[in-house]
Amino acid sequence: MQALLFDKKLRLANVNLPERRPGEALIQVSLAGICNTDLEIMRGYMDFTGVPGHEFVGVVKESDKPSLAGKRVVGEINAGCGDCELCRSGDPRHCPSRTVLGISGRNGAFAEYLTIPETNLHVVPDNVPDTAAVFTEPLAAALQIFDEPLYELPKGTSIAVIGDGKLGLLVGQAALAYGYTPVLFGKNKRKLSLAASWRIRTYTAGDQNSETFSIVIECSGEPSGLKLAMNIVEPKGIIILKSTYAADAAFDLSPIVINEISLAGSRCGNFPPALQLLEENIIDTNSLITAMYPLSEGLEAFRRAGEKDSLKILLKIND
Amino acid sequence: MQALLFDKKLRLANVNLPERRPGEALIQVSLAGICNTDLEIMRGYMDFTGVPGHEFVGVVKESDKPSLAGKRVVGEINAGCGDCELCRSGDPRHCPSRTVLGISGRNGAFAEYLTIPETNLHVVPDNVPDTAAVFTEPLAAALQIFDEPLYELPKGTSIAVIGDGKLGLLVGQAALAYGYTPVLFGKNKRKLSLAASWRIRTYTAGDQNSETFSIVIECSGEPSGLKLAMNIVEPKGIIILKSTYAADAAFDLSPIVINEISLAGSRCGNFPPALQLLEENIIDTNSLITAMYPLSEGLEAFRRAGEKDSLKILLKIND
Repeated sequence: MQALLFDKKLRLANVNLPERRPGEALIQVSLAGICNTDLEIMRGYMDFTGVPGHEFVGVVKESDKPSLAGKRVVGEINAGCGDCELCRSGDPRHCPSRTVLGISGRNGAFAEYLTIPETNLHVVPDNVPDTAAVFTEPLAAALQIFDEPLYELPKGTSIAVIGDGKLGLLVGQAALAYGYTPVLFGKNKRKLSLAASWRIRTYTAGDQNSETFSIVIECSGEPSGLKLAMNIVEPKGIIILKSTYAADAAFDLSPIVINEISLAGSRCGNFPPALQLLEENIIDTNSLITAMYPLSEGLEAFRRAGEKDSLKILLKIND
Repeated sequence: MQALLFDKKLRLANVNLPERRPGEALIQVSLAGICNTDLEIMRGYMDFTGVPGHEFVGVVKESDKPSLAGKRVVGEINAGCGDCELCRSGDPRHCPSRTVLGISGRNGAFAEYLTIPETNLHVVPDNVPDTAAVFTEPLAAALQIFDEPLYELPKGTSIAVIGDGKLGLLVGQAALAYGYTPVLFGKNKRKLSLAASWRIRTYTAGDQNSETFSIVIECSGEPSGLKLAMNIVEPKGIIILKSTYAADAAFDLSPIVINEISLAGSRCGNFPPALQLLEENIIDTNSLITAMYPLSEGLEAFRRAGEKDSLKILLKIND
């Protein structure tokens, strides 16, 4: 089958069909999305080698579960060992022996087929098109923030979101959907206008202002984003880090101590709440799509995904 | 009066007696302690200029409150404006216009006299000697960790404490006093033996081990301490930063996101619980004292405080 293969460099390659292990389904990938994590992988993040790609929607071609056969599905990306304490408590996301689709120890979605544990799969509601369903994974990650009891905040609370990329724009919409008042900090006029069209208040990062927030969500993935977060968070406030970084960055951590800030990491989320919002058509995913390429033009798609003004770049893999 | 004065360089100087503002008391300092923050100030932390020193016990010489006259006292170090929302809610520690004794905008305790708001003062119980009372401020900072509802943990929980300096050794004792099971990570054999004498389990930092912790308290103030913390904290665990750092340090923040760790800053604490433990003679402060110098030998005291094997260095200022 055709796939994008990364081994220090990304290339289009013919690879063997993945072999389905017990408990796994074979999925024919319809559509896959390029995430910033994929771009970080190109820079060495996680030392990953293989087929990247973890945002997908596809069709089940082989499965031991008759209920899944032929179904249109999306899939959670962490595959735990199934045996450890964390897996048995229902949290394979943190299983120390886990593989992660297209990120760690498991080939991903930038290929005609992939395999993933059947328990990771969720059937896509009929009224959700592939072009929306492919956002389930990043939307779930955005919603995870508001799932966490640690940050329980009264509805209506102003929440700063730093970064006007696809993640920041999803987080802004997720905050709106959950009854918070997001304020988006970005650099790109067109992206900020998009947020404004959803009635999200925006700031151009760098503009002087003295507004502060009890909760700040860092989605830019840039050290300057974390620095801005430290400047606008209130004493005893919380900064949530959503973005992964490939490299060390220099930070002055003393404001964390002096102002008793909490810096909390947040990664993947559960799919059902994301699928529900997509089914209710509450999230504008269409405006987040910059372009769609066939898998054969995957290298060009990656180039495009790295451009400053791009939002989501999709790979159309099978009809 | 005689004082240690810092202006890019520390020197012994004759300075004017501090002027008591409304609501403030004039304290004759008996004993003061040198903290790592003082050493960081010498390296430029907070751009402080003036008389450093924020750990003290002294005697009230002038006050508008008759109940304080002649009393032996210790003092909380943050002096809020008294007017802002935070001050009115009882939290001058985060008042944006606050001064901080010997750290920011207010001369400190390495002098014969100091002034501080009367509301900051706590009378020292008779059975607590000056050499123990001078530990009230750092002990309160250590206890603050266990005061925070965010980290509410079942008694008996194993808590990793990184750093065998005076702060780490106080935090270890505080954890013990509150019914937790501290495990201390350090580098210095003599200091680790001291912890072991209190029945605290110890690790020599760098020793290979696979024990992990849901809560890790970073007290080393060194980037290597934070890196160790990230290695030994469990997924979804909490790292508490107690130490302030003068400079930027390079960190790989991706484990925070991937393992959904929280990094929480913690600074000063309330004095009453600290005074209570000192009154109950539960904390071994004597073993934490390395040496005591007269104020006139303050420069030598600072030099000594900076040595690797030193714990608390005290300045004996008035009898």
